[in-house]
Amino acid sequence: MTKTRAGNFFEDYRVGQVLRHAVPRTVTEGDRAVYTALYPTRFALASSDPFAQACGLLRSPIEEIAAFHVVFGKTVPDVSLNAIANLGYAEGRFLRPVYPGDTLTAESEVIGLRETSNRRSGVVWVRTVGRNQRGEAVLSYCRWVMVRKRDPEAAVAETVVPTLAGALAAADLVVPAGLHFTGYDFGLAGEPWRWGDYAVGEKIDHVDRVTVEEAEHMLATRLWQNTAKVHFDVTAREEGRRLIYGGHVISIARALSFNGLANAQVVAAINAGAHANPCHAGDTIGAWSAVLDKSETAAPGVGALRLRTVAAKAGTSAFALRDAAGKYLPGVLLDLDYWVLVPC
Amino acid sequence: MTKTRAGNFFEDYRVGQVLRHAVPRTVTEGDRAVYTALYPTRFALASSDPFAQACGLLRSPIEEIAAFHVVFGKTVPDVSLNAIANLGYAEGRFLRPVYPGDTLTAESEVIGLRETSNRRSGVVWVRTVGRNQRGEAVLSYCRWVMVRKRDPEAAVAETVVPTLAGALAAADLVVPAGLHFTGYDFGLAGEPWRWGDYAVGEKIDHVDRVTVEEAEHMLATRLWQNTAKVHFDVTAREEGRRLIYGGHVISIARALSFNGLANAQVVAAINAGAHANPCHAGDTIGAWSAVLDKSETAAPGVGALRLRTVAAKAGTSAFALRDAAGKYLPGVLLDLDYWVLVPC
Amino acid sequence: MTKTRAGNFFEDYRVGQVLRHAVPRTVTEGDRAVYTALYPTRFALASSDPFAQACGLLRSPIEEIAAFHVVFGKTVPDVSLNAIANLGYAEGRFLRPVYPGDTLTAESEVIGLRETSNRRSGVVWVRTVGRNQRGEAVLSYCRWVMVRKRDPEAAVAETVVPTLAGALAAADLVVPAGLHFTGYDFGLAGEPWRWGDYAVGEKIDHVDRVTVEEAEHMLATRLWQNTAKVHFDVTAREEGRRLIYGGHVISIARALSFNGLANAQVVAAINAGAHANPCHAGDTIGAWSAVLDKSETAAPGVGALRLRTVAAKAGTSAFALRDAAGKYLPGVLLDLDYWVLVPC
Repeated sequence: MTKTRAGNFFEDYRVGQVLRHAVPRTVTEGDRAVYTALYPTRFALASSDPFAQACGLLRSPIEEIAAFHVVFGKTVPDVSLNAIANLGYAEGRFLRPVYPGDTLTAESEVIGLRETSNRRSGVVWVRTVGRNQRGEAVLSYCRWVMVRKRDPEAAVAETVVPTLAGALAAADLVVPAGLHFTGYDFGLAGEPWRWGDYAVGEKIDHVDRVTVEEAEHMLATRLWQNTAKVHFDVTAREEGRRLIYGGHVISIARALSFNGLANAQVVAAINAGAHANPCHAGDTIGAWSAVLDKSETAAPGVGALRLRTVAAKAGTSAFALRDAAGKYLPGVLLDLDYWVLVPC
Repeated sequence: MTKTRAGNFFEDYRVGQVLRHAVPRTVTEGDRAVYTALYPTRFALASSDPFAQACGLLRSPIEEIAAFHVVFGKTVPDVSLNAIANLGYAEGRFLRPVYPGDTLTAESEVIGLRETSNRRSGVVWVRTVGRNQRGEAVLSYCRWVMVRKRDPEAAVAETVVPTLAGALAAADLVVPAGLHFTGYDFGLAGEPWRWGDYAVGEKIDHVDRVTVEEAEHMLATRLWQNTAKVHFDVTAREEGRRLIYGGHVISIARALSFNGLANAQVVAAINAGAHANPCHAGDTIGAWSAVLDKSETAAPGVGALRLRTVAAKAGTSAFALRDAAGKYLPGVLLDLDYWVLVPC
Repeated sequence: MTKTRAGNFFEDYRVGQVLRHAVPRTVTEGDRAVYTALYPTRFALASSDPFAQACGLLRSPIEEIAAFHVVFGKTVPDVSLNAIANLGYAEGRFLRPVYPGDTLTAESEVIGLRETSNRRSGVVWVRTVGRNQRGEAVLSYCRWVMVRKRDPEAAVAETVVPTLAGALAAADLVVPAGLHFTGYDFGLAGEPWRWGDYAVGEKIDHVDRVTVEEAEHMLATRLWQNTAKVHFDVTAREEGRRLIYGGHVISIARALSFNGLANAQVVAAINAGAHANPCHAGDTIGAWSAVLDKSETAAPGVGALRLRTVAAKAGTSAFALRDAAGKYLPGVLLDLDYWVLVPC
């Protein structure tokens, strides 16, 4: 009887199945410091306790994307250990701030299954919820991955393809309790641009770029206790190179977006996300964003912007995304569709 | 009069001599975060305050191996600055949990000395004790190293070879005060295996591997304020490569062992340890374990397993250890014999 | 209307102009841990709460140089985004300890301007003050940088060259309130040398060296939210290599100086500093110091030493600094003139 986990294969999943993930994780100021050292992040709300308190929060929260990584990392052993590809995200919502000292756990429900035509794998849809030590949901999202079958001949569950929102409506966004941007200090935040200054259709080239290193992406991925082999073991990959965790690119893109979006203080939702091409150490990554939609919220002084942020390797033209056939350009790494909260 | 330390040479030691090591170190949540980023560690007790509290502890302790590194690092300037080789460990015991906020100091007593036959060096045995800010011993261990002589002609102290236990008896293990594994949550911990599921003689291949980087082992070694030149300065080594601190490999092996030993929550003792071959950046490291012994303890629901965990480079067969002549295989990096506490 | 910052150009500055820098930053134990992992730092006051309390402080302060990096990082977007060279520092004073939990902000006043003769750039002098969450100044310093003009033809402000002190007088040093070195524990600190043991003119070779990595200097530079392109983006530099942030070399030199200056617990002032040559990953860095001056202070048991610490690449002779023409030797990276506080 082997004691090591081989992970789940496609034929192991059933719609409605609930996966309670290990290991609970207390998030601390230490994690924030490592995160700051890993990404050029500077959003004031996640950098300064007094700034966050002036915006109605208890103290400076952990960045939403960092909380997402913690929860995502827990799902890897149960959902994607035998994944061929991480296909997409939908209906991601940040429901409550995560503060240093909070302990996160995660649970996923299988909401869809479809075998691929060659019968060697199948697509698994899960809805994952992250909770704090009081059992309160702090974030939830859907993800679908292509997972290998242990045995191509194995019988599988009936096909269920869930209906997922293309994007969350502004009315479905959760503004953290107490958050307000009345009296917001634009000087301390770094840029003067407010909600009214952003127009739907506007595009922003974030200008800065960063060349990524092996040690960095492994530090990041381990910080979230995500132990997928492909990120750590050069012998595990045919090409002999470690594949960089897609979440590392999300964090880089979010941090680079400060230059032009410094007031996008809170990520409220992830509508969709695609890891368009693999990323490797040595790549130099830049980012651009487009404003897809905008909306007011009920919170004082708080507006919402729906953004597309694209991360791409140096050499890819700014604002370029797909080729004539509709395929992502080879230099495009990430295409992320999300909502942020900004001062009005 | 030079102000820099040249460290002690073999002829400087006397049996009974007490070395009070600099520098006291307050261990924090920051250290835990860096440790988590450096190793793929996921043991629930050292990851989550509520999990640790449910097991009877005040909060989540710093991993025992991390506390060991802090204490070990302090001994380097006085014990091993002029070491040729770190020969072994014995009678290592973890006596009390180390919590964030505790401040550690270290003291060593010379317990043995034996000049080598060529008179150019000698073996020094020390017993080191690490203490917290209240003066309570948190860990102790014996270590012996081969240390250069300043002057081959120098007179040395009489040979004393200490008698050290080959392994600690289960009865000598210290279970942290209050620790119990009644009501232990195997789901949150990540694996269902309890004390009764492990058999003496059983072997576990931990499957996962990690390719190590220069930046990582230097970050780790500095975190413990271990400033032995060989780990940092390429010009200090004939082969022009930095030698990776043996403790970095111990932490990698312990973290990799999660896969099959997720419930080995506490390291209670180190019986013996050998750094079998040097480790360098670029090496891809895996690990396997064997169960050497098992015992009950007086604490509720707490059992003890004596394990051998071996770290080896990729390409070394699983469970392979020595050649026909009894010599460690060239790919074997670490052979560690230790006791862990697991739920019954 | 572009939303990204192009930074200020020389013609944008006016003497008397006040630049209020973004983003406030709460400094924590996490930052200390990352700092410790990045540098081989071991000064007892910044390592141990009980040691700091025995010296009259509230707890262990963040290292002065780390606080300097936080403040410096904030000035980059407003002062040196279009800099050609960082020319010098003067009148740097540490005015109050920074403790974990403090939030730092920064403000600079333009105190000098001089166009270069080719009219393509100019030298900008600023005096920067860092403050904590109570508005108390924690440090201040002058810096001058050569900044590009947007348009060589643009009119510029009248030339003003400020008069700056070559070195702070000992009487101008601020000793942290409550600090005393009566009852100082030299054993725990790591060396027996006190103020009286250091002679003006004395030189110390710090012996240890460290080979630096790309991941390390980028982690360091981001930790201070310093996002100057040249440190991160290989495509931003003609030579295709990332330039290491000069502050990284300052921290390495300060940490290496422990070996011979372990009791230099507090940096009280920076009189002058030159980044003599560029530093790149792969360089192996050592350091030496000379005692330039010494003075008593009014605080019990606290003396002051004025030091020159020089960081140089391996292969540069110890204590070598300039060639016959007075130019820094090509291996010299840093020439730092500063005051430290040591026990009498």
